[in-house]
Amino acid sequence: MISFKNDYSEGAHPRILKTLMETNLKQEEGYGLDSYSLEAARLIRDRIGREDVDVHFLSGGTQTNLIAISSFLRPHEAAIAAQTGHIFVHEAGAIESTGHKVLAVVTRDGKLAPEQIQPVLDFHTDEHMVKPRLVYLSNPTELGTVYSRQELEDLRSFCDEKGLLLYVDGARLGSALCVPETDLDLGSMAQLTDAFYIGGTKCGALIGEALVIRPPSLRQDFRFYMKQKGALLSKGRLLGIQFLELFRDDLYFELARHANRMAGRLKSAIEGVGFGFLADSPTNQIFPILPDSLIDELKKDFDFYTWSRVDDSHSSIRLVTSWATRQEDVAALIQAIETGRDLR
Amino acid sequence: MISFKNDYSEGAHPRILKTLMETNLKQEEGYGLDSYSLEAARLIRDRIGREDVDVHFLSGGTQTNLIAISSFLRPHEAAIAAQTGHIFVHEAGAIESTGHKVLAVVTRDGKLAPEQIQPVLDFHTDEHMVKPRLVYLSNPTELGTVYSRQELEDLRSFCDEKGLLLYVDGARLGSALCVPETDLDLGSMAQLTDAFYIGGTKCGALIGEALVIRPPSLRQDFRFYMKQKGALLSKGRLLGIQFLELFRDDLYFELARHANRMAGRLKSAIEGVGFGFLADSPTNQIFPILPDSLIDELKKDFDFYTWSRVDDSHSSIRLVTSWATRQEDVAALIQAIETGRDLR
Amino acid sequence: MISFKNDYSEGAHPRILKTLMETNLKQEEGYGLDSYSLEAARLIRDRIGREDVDVHFLSGGTQTNLIAISSFLRPHEAAIAAQTGHIFVHEAGAIESTGHKVLAVVTRDGKLAPEQIQPVLDFHTDEHMVKPRLVYLSNPTELGTVYSRQELEDLRSFCDEKGLLLYVDGARLGSALCVPETDLDLGSMAQLTDAFYIGGTKCGALIGEALVIRPPSLRQDFRFYMKQKGALLSKGRLLGIQFLELFRDDLYFELARHANRMAGRLKSAIEGVGFGFLADSPTNQIFPILPDSLIDELKKDFDFYTWSRVDDSHSSIRLVTSWATRQEDVAALIQAIETGRDLR
Amino acid sequence: MISFKNDYSEGAHPRILKTLMETNLKQEEGYGLDSYSLEAARLIRDRIGREDVDVHFLSGGTQTNLIAISSFLRPHEAAIAAQTGHIFVHEAGAIESTGHKVLAVVTRDGKLAPEQIQPVLDFHTDEHMVKPRLVYLSNPTELGTVYSRQELEDLRSFCDEKGLLLYVDGARLGSALCVPETDLDLGSMAQLTDAFYIGGTKCGALIGEALVIRPPSLRQDFRFYMKQKGALLSKGRLLGIQFLELFRDDLYFELARHANRMAGRLKSAIEGVGFGFLADSPTNQIFPILPDSLIDELKKDFDFYTWSRVDDSHSSIRLVTSWATRQEDVAALIQAIETGRDLR
Repeated sequence: MISFKNDYSEGAHPRILKTLMETNLKQEEGYGLDSYSLEAARLIRDRIGREDVDVHFLSGGTQTNLIAISSFLRPHEAAIAAQTGHIFVHEAGAIESTGHKVLAVVTRDGKLAPEQIQPVLDFHTDEHMVKPRLVYLSNPTELGTVYSRQELEDLRSFCDEKGLLLYVDGARLGSALCVPETDLDLGSMAQLTDAFYIGGTKCGALIGEALVIRPPSLRQDFRFYMKQKGALLSKGRLLGIQFLELFRDDLYFELARHANRMAGRLKSAIEGVGFGFLADSPTNQIFPILPDSLIDELKKDFDFYTWSRVDDSHSSIRLVTSWATRQEDVAALIQAIETGRDLR
Repeated sequence: MISFKNDYSEGAHPRILKTLMETNLKQEEGYGLDSYSLEAARLIRDRIGREDVDVHFLSGGTQTNLIAISSFLRPHEAAIAAQTGHIFVHEAGAIESTGHKVLAVVTRDGKLAPEQIQPVLDFHTDEHMVKPRLVYLSNPTELGTVYSRQELEDLRSFCDEKGLLLYVDGARLGSALCVPETDLDLGSMAQLTDAFYIGGTKCGALIGEALVIRPPSLRQDFRFYMKQKGALLSKGRLLGIQFLELFRDDLYFELARHANRMAGRLKSAIEGVGFGFLADSPTNQIFPILPDSLIDELKKDFDFYTWSRVDDSHSSIRLVTSWATRQEDVAALIQAIETGRDLR
Repeated sequence: MISFKNDYSEGAHPRILKTLMETNLKQEEGYGLDSYSLEAARLIRDRIGREDVDVHFLSGGTQTNLIAISSFLRPHEAAIAAQTGHIFVHEAGAIESTGHKVLAVVTRDGKLAPEQIQPVLDFHTDEHMVKPRLVYLSNPTELGTVYSRQELEDLRSFCDEKGLLLYVDGARLGSALCVPETDLDLGSMAQLTDAFYIGGTKCGALIGEALVIRPPSLRQDFRFYMKQKGALLSKGRLLGIQFLELFRDDLYFELARHANRMAGRLKSAIEGVGFGFLADSPTNQIFPILPDSLIDELKKDFDFYTWSRVDDSHSSIRLVTSWATRQEDVAALIQAIETGRDLR
Repeated sequence: MISFKNDYSEGAHPRILKTLMETNLKQEEGYGLDSYSLEAARLIRDRIGREDVDVHFLSGGTQTNLIAISSFLRPHEAAIAAQTGHIFVHEAGAIESTGHKVLAVVTRDGKLAPEQIQPVLDFHTDEHMVKPRLVYLSNPTELGTVYSRQELEDLRSFCDEKGLLLYVDGARLGSALCVPETDLDLGSMAQLTDAFYIGGTKCGALIGEALVIRPPSLRQDFRFYMKQKGALLSKGRLLGIQFLELFRDDLYFELARHANRMAGRLKSAIEGVGFGFLADSPTNQIFPILPDSLIDELKKDFDFYTWSRVDDSHSSIRLVTSWATRQEDVAALIQAIETGRDLR
């Protein structure tokens, strides 16, 4: 069984494990104050091109989202997210657990734009309702789509005008920043958002996300929130070493490009066979719409999620590639789809 | 500079890193449902000797404490802890952050006994106060002291009689269960408590604690709480593999015994020189009381915490050993203390 | 200016104020243990016809909803409500503030039925999502519509089958139970729900809601939750005396019937003129759809909310009557509408 | 049975009830925007002598404390209180329920001073602990003692220097501001604190506390917090009318002076008989230390709390007077104590 179920089926890139081994017995400070974490944060600030951001390393996406958002908001303030947004659906109510409502917006492709946010603001008029305060985006979105620089600039202007914070969940940010047509990079992410995170777990690390925060008011006392929510690891070196390795050179983006390329091959082949997609994803998650009988056939040799029913005889599936996806496995899946193209 | 500052200065035991490498490319399920985590849980249940307990792997002590305690309690219920207890002092208000008060009891040696808990129950008489519901112990305590089986049985009986839950923070449980005079083991821990955790981070792992829960009512839906608080790692294999390696044979306890032995050597030597201790610790944390001038001298070559002022010219310090503490470093510290014995 | 804006524009029914005066200097226990509160609870249990329910008096609807729901749910559990439900929209995120997500269901008339709840259950499949656990209804709904006994029985059966709790917000319960066609009464409310509240503030009291809880597990320690959330009034007699007066005889329902009658007159007259309604409400809130020009005209002499835009030239308005609504004011409004019928 | 158990045994001052009746049928805005509430707030601002404060009316002390403190603090910040402080002991964990730890300081007489707060600041050094941020005082304290202007000025300077907020629980503020020797008034309270509340429930009202907030940052969006915690009453007029009546002239302070005078008579008589007190209280709560046999005797005719055991044969009791305490009841209690003076 070959898995295209997600991008966390395997462990870490070998270079990371190697560095873990080499540094293993060096005595270091705890709780993220080790020399590796400090150096990794410096590398990321260098890549961003500014000194006035804080970089914190956390264990996972839900943890990062809940700590960031709950520390940024006052008790009556709410986040706005796409109805497909990870915080709205797939984090077991983590944000609400910290006391904040998530206001959901129906979207076509998982992306938010000012014209979809404005009605939420219009609706929330007084103290009988929550106060919308933070816009939550995922880039790429949960449907694999990505934001352009123009779209992010529009959102930034809108947020500035309305007094909203802009936060980006970058669980797969590497993938978004490596699509050929993108004009976004880490520098523009830091410039255009109040905070965003660079996902490690789904891009070559064993574990770890790097949260970048820009406004001084949001940076204040952030380590308290991390500690209070159980996110300060006593062996914080584990996170620091991984990001150090990923950002020592271009490894992080190399791994993302590989994942995108593998998904791109699948996409081309599936298009070639004549099947469509739920959304137009240039990243490492694609959502082809296939006949149910073909899906059943594929399930014999491949592992993946059936995503949603499209019509009586078709469903969308989710195929995910990663830094570790092998070309031969992609080829095998393409062949299986081409072979089964006439199944109805 | 040689560090006796804590037991998380180094990485993981080499066998753990080796297994991480060997298993790295195997595709596995996410979120703790990988074969390694399942197998590690089975090994721990075997060691405990009962099937009717759940074992969950989490990232750190504060995270484990806050998720366990907040899931066990109803909103008006409180935890009782020693005033030195980690949850009362050193978790940045993590328990209160989930809505629960921690009721502190002054103790001499960091240990709780029924006669210290009874006054707390007597004081909390009605709905104008919180309802004490859970007794939080650390074994070993934050002062390095340990509970005997009889003490734990007395607490269990007391808790049963009063309708209290008994929870043990085992950040350094290996150390407690390896002191020569102990009559406790994992089986009795599971029998005598409602829940406890087996600390990995401070006993050879890179990261990870294994939480053991016995009563069915507390086991129900526990993975929801883990997810909601950001503790379900997508690459849960990271935790599973480590505990698998630690409990595949006796490695976990071997490492704890080494740490205890190294602390024991320090203790004997310091006693030999004539200095006393803040508490009588048989575990890997000891708290000798030294002249301030000697402490200043030692700080030139060794890293450790000054713990508390004892009198005008003496303070207690904390010395911590670990699985990775080298005999030659212990010898060097002993020599330095013996050399400086006459400093006043 | 005559107000049809809400049913809390005036104070309390004069009999209530009279009894407050007469009892004023009698020394009583505090915190809801006064003889009036105990007697009022007994009267309500008598009216319900069962002894195995607890009755608590609280200050307002949002307070009652948040304390009840947060005490009934474990941290990962969620409430299901209509998208128009008061807890979803108009309580400033009170439920989320206690840590629980509210799952919203789009409805036509503000009412929930099993077939609308089932998809919510189908969608929430595992620990990556919240666990739906409580169904929140309002009776009457925020659109003035009411549930029949059959509808409530169907919901009860459904909830039993699915392991869900059924909770009814009865801010205007008197109005719902007094519509001519209803086959529900306080006894059936207690039988068919796990908890519900009898709204006082909007039915003749100055302040106060009576919460009725049936299952022993939900009744346990409830006064702790009230105290912790600031709902135990030291002069609880204020609430007890009011409900005592409302339920000493049939006053509570008399007042509700008056409000319904006044709304009924408005409704008949508006129908007579040929205007329609947003929903078919037999209770004291009606939502006629009027030409904008007529609305502008009416606003010169009457106070009410414009509710929603219906088309380019029409909007719905909300007209609310109360125990204190005067017949001559209703007549004046009818005349104004009839006079302005040709405004377009 | 005559009660000296508390100052909420009776209802409201008759003038308040009279005004409730007279205003009863006037149609008013809801949720604290009625003309009475607006006027009452203006009267209080006039009395304070400054326009730059917000005044909000809430239902009770626990509710006021929890909403104020939780809205003033960020998630990792803690309140400092005397170990006898109402929020530490008698609010069922209300502050912790909003996520904040209360750090308790042992005091002799229920009062805090800078030298007792400084050690708390010294102890909390980094992100592994909560961050002390708000000093909670009660004036009068739970032991009936009061702060002088100098003491409050010292605390204000200390708080300014340390970046702490200063909040005063004034459940019985009238009593504190009416002791003959005081040099504090509402104006100095507003000047020297960040926020404080003027207790109504225990000083002549049926229900109600008036919260005064000075710093603009703490005033922002405060009505959202009130709504979210269930404190915005739809018939907010109930609170406004009461404070309007209490502050229309000097009624509030007249009632407090009466309560103080009644307690003063008891105190003089008890001192005359030769008994001592737990603390030196000039306010309406006194804590005489009496022989247990005398206490038993008094309990036959009078209702009061036995407060604490003092020695084998003596206990302290709490005697509370109120605006409604009758001179003849005070005389009766004095006579009973004088009669029983030789009981041992």
